[in-house]
Amino acid sequence: MNCPTIRYRFDPAVIVATLLTGMLVGTVASAGPRNVILIIGDGMDDHQITIARNYLVGAAGKLVLDELPLRSVAQVLTVTDTVPSEVIYVADSANTATSLSTGIVTSRGRLGTTAGSDRDVTNIVELAQAAGLKTGIVATSSVTDATPAAFVAHISRRYCESPAAMVDVAYRGITLADCTPDLASNGGKGSISEQIAASQVDVVLGGGAKHFAPNVAGGDHSVLEAAKKNGFHVITKGSELRSVPADKKLLGVFSESHLPVRLQGEDGRVAEKPKSSFMNQVHRYLGSVTLPEPMRCEANPATAGVPSLEMMTEAALSHLANEPDKGFFLVVESASIDKQSHVRNACGSIGELEQLDEALASALDFAEQYPETLILVTADHGHAAQLVPNESLFSEFGVPVYTPGHLARLVTRDGAVLAINYATNSFKLEEHTGVNVPLYSNAAGQGRVKGMVTQPELFDIMVKYLGLSRALALPTPSQ
Amino acid sequence: MNCPTIRYRFDPAVIVATLLTGMLVGTVASAGPRNVILIIGDGMDDHQITIARNYLVGAAGKLVLDELPLRSVAQVLTVTDTVPSEVIYVADSANTATSLSTGIVTSRGRLGTTAGSDRDVTNIVELAQAAGLKTGIVATSSVTDATPAAFVAHISRRYCESPAAMVDVAYRGITLADCTPDLASNGGKGSISEQIAASQVDVVLGGGAKHFAPNVAGGDHSVLEAAKKNGFHVITKGSELRSVPADKKLLGVFSESHLPVRLQGEDGRVAEKPKSSFMNQVHRYLGSVTLPEPMRCEANPATAGVPSLEMMTEAALSHLANEPDKGFFLVVESASIDKQSHVRNACGSIGELEQLDEALASALDFAEQYPETLILVTADHGHAAQLVPNESLFSEFGVPVYTPGHLARLVTRDGAVLAINYATNSFKLEEHTGVNVPLYSNAAGQGRVKGMVTQPELFDIMVKYLGLSRALALPTPSQ
Repeated sequence: MNCPTIRYRFDPAVIVATLLTGMLVGTVASAGPRNVILIIGDGMDDHQITIARNYLVGAAGKLVLDELPLRSVAQVLTVTDTVPSEVIYVADSANTATSLSTGIVTSRGRLGTTAGSDRDVTNIVELAQAAGLKTGIVATSSVTDATPAAFVAHISRRYCESPAAMVDVAYRGITLADCTPDLASNGGKGSISEQIAASQVDVVLGGGAKHFAPNVAGGDHSVLEAAKKNGFHVITKGSELRSVPADKKLLGVFSESHLPVRLQGEDGRVAEKPKSSFMNQVHRYLGSVTLPEPMRCEANPATAGVPSLEMMTEAALSHLANEPDKGFFLVVESASIDKQSHVRNACGSIGELEQLDEALASALDFAEQYPETLILVTADHGHAAQLVPNESLFSEFGVPVYTPGHLARLVTRDGAVLAINYATNSFKLEEHTGVNVPLYSNAAGQGRVKGMVTQPELFDIMVKYLGLSRALALPTPSQ
Repeated sequence: MNCPTIRYRFDPAVIVATLLTGMLVGTVASAGPRNVILIIGDGMDDHQITIARNYLVGAAGKLVLDELPLRSVAQVLTVTDTVPSEVIYVADSANTATSLSTGIVTSRGRLGTTAGSDRDVTNIVELAQAAGLKTGIVATSSVTDATPAAFVAHISRRYCESPAAMVDVAYRGITLADCTPDLASNGGKGSISEQIAASQVDVVLGGGAKHFAPNVAGGDHSVLEAAKKNGFHVITKGSELRSVPADKKLLGVFSESHLPVRLQGEDGRVAEKPKSSFMNQVHRYLGSVTLPEPMRCEANPATAGVPSLEMMTEAALSHLANEPDKGFFLVVESASIDKQSHVRNACGSIGELEQLDEALASALDFAEQYPETLILVTADHGHAAQLVPNESLFSEFGVPVYTPGHLARLVTRDGAVLAINYATNSFKLEEHTGVNVPLYSNAAGQGRVKGMVTQPELFDIMVKYLGLSRALALPTPSQ
């Protein structure tokens, strides 16, 4: 594997001095400035975690995630855009990331803006910057995708990712969004990539080069050029993470769109519909049904040269920690647990959960050196994948019993078959679910993170831990 | 509502004296003997909890469950019966309740016995009795059903519930089990109801009268008569819970089979398949699909005169606490969260989760008086129900998007529509899932229950808390 050497500022002499200073003032805990690392697994509900654990380390094994000392659950809240007092029960990544980044409850598709009234709400990155802290955003998606974007941008619709996609944004001929009110010419902040380019975020790493290629609105240079003019050191190759100037903001975009995922099914297979025999088509209790052939996950060759989430996380931590007197806020997202579940690729989701687990291990290593680091791991919303029996509970009845949806069957390291069901709709893409999501924290969360919190409360916990003033924040809308 | 007056032994003078004694020895915590209350929601995964919360108290509301100070997750482990070293990923209530009651990992359908080798393993109720503690079992199912039975019986197959169902046990003509080796004439312990009747459990409350009606094996009297001969005071009406002799073992069976559930859909409706228009039958992206009409849940009239889980729990606690110098172990199960999810009745599951929440409130009240009480709340396995979007995430695409399974749509107290999907198979009954399950505890769990535990480890935690000797226990099989 092509692993860059990360040069941490973990000087043993500094550590000893820091510890001694801590002891002199009575506690090691107050030794340094405080940091928050928020790790988001997109769509990473308990099914996804159990599926990944079973595949990667076996049913009785433990992920790094499983060893975290504090486990809680986060309540996902969403409202409609037309009547912002009206509840809806299933979220998307835009409104949930906005809850985490700003502490408000908003409607699906919105980033850093209020439901209905479309007001901008200050996010934790802006609060941290105002307090002199450093900030970072790392994602395996395009950095303009909903989750990372909610930590930097304020815009009415998540699909307005570049200046070329602001008016009548269409996907294969179907109009998905319109951000006319967000155009700079209308007093708005412009597209998501333009807002990133114009930002003061210290580190932004992920995919999405294509959203930085168009010219800025009303200008004759690309968004990437605009980022450079704004002081960003821009890199596009994983190998460039090895040596980045410590005194410049860093923008790394390592693929045109989302980063390729680590794992795929054999021969690119995803979940498939069980196949009915002729008599089974006459009646569902007759004849037989053939389930998809079990398979193993295999490496996706498209990842060659693309940095892992762990490598990006280590580079971001190294960059953020290079001014030891300043604390920081860093958000790290494994984005494609969700995206691969939408397309029924169980192997894809498993590999991206593994990436999250590795990034978490790096964050925990960092927190060993800098104990004033609160690490939170959570998901934004639940997802379609369900771990179902490989052999039905009702096999004794002697009739074919099979899912009406799509099934993937994976041979695990236990040597057993893990069956994963996708059956939330008849469309090409599966739905999110509205289940409460897992929330974990390291020891720094003790006494701060209770058994259940809402996503906006998670924002409050981070802001309070970093000692940030919320004076900058706009009043939150009624929830 | 027909609420019996429960006469707790909560004498204020005793409480004050206990507190004073506690202070004299330096801590209130060591004031009395220790108790464990294990509350099991059958099939109660995070989807079930989120669905029930949304319906009962609204999206931003809190159940009693949600306010518990410690939230963890339990890892569900199962092996095959043919090769007990072989893992399977989805459990049933028999093997999981056996993990909780005995600390071993076994195969589906087994109660208190090892996979393959069929050895009996001592359970926590037997360990508690051997140590002089009192014991109780409360369930909304038949008391002979898998979960309660695992805390008293040792038998190879869960379906052998009475002496009339030991050989070639069939359901509607389909053979489900055979317990010939468990017959007393073959040196076994007999059916589940016979094992309950012969037991020394202090309180057994639930349904299942029909399993106590047949004559005991080789005898001329019913299993219920055998229970009476063995010292049980037998009751069959909820009103009889008001006055039970404090000095006798108590067996209450309040219905022929499982207790009727609290809530049902309007006009008995459960989840339904969306209805396709003619053109939609030509192709799934043409025409239109009509989703099931939204409805509210309504009271099930069949519950009249049947005690609630809360009433049974209070009666059991009162009975168990009537010898204040003895600690106790009590297991309380809300059984039909699972059973109603099998039959796609979202209202049924919601009402039974509400019953669990009320029983938990009673347990917490009890622990206020007796702080040496560890309360654990968990599930045995996950279930089919999924909270899905009422309006698809892909509605912009303008084609019908709907579940391939069954959908229930409920109007909640938020005034919004909650959509619940059941799509794990094509059969009359939905499957369990293999997701890790929630685990909660009260303050007594602090430092004892970590962020993730296996179900056998949960047994260890309870045994250790009660200071029980495991000397009685058979060696556990290799896992």
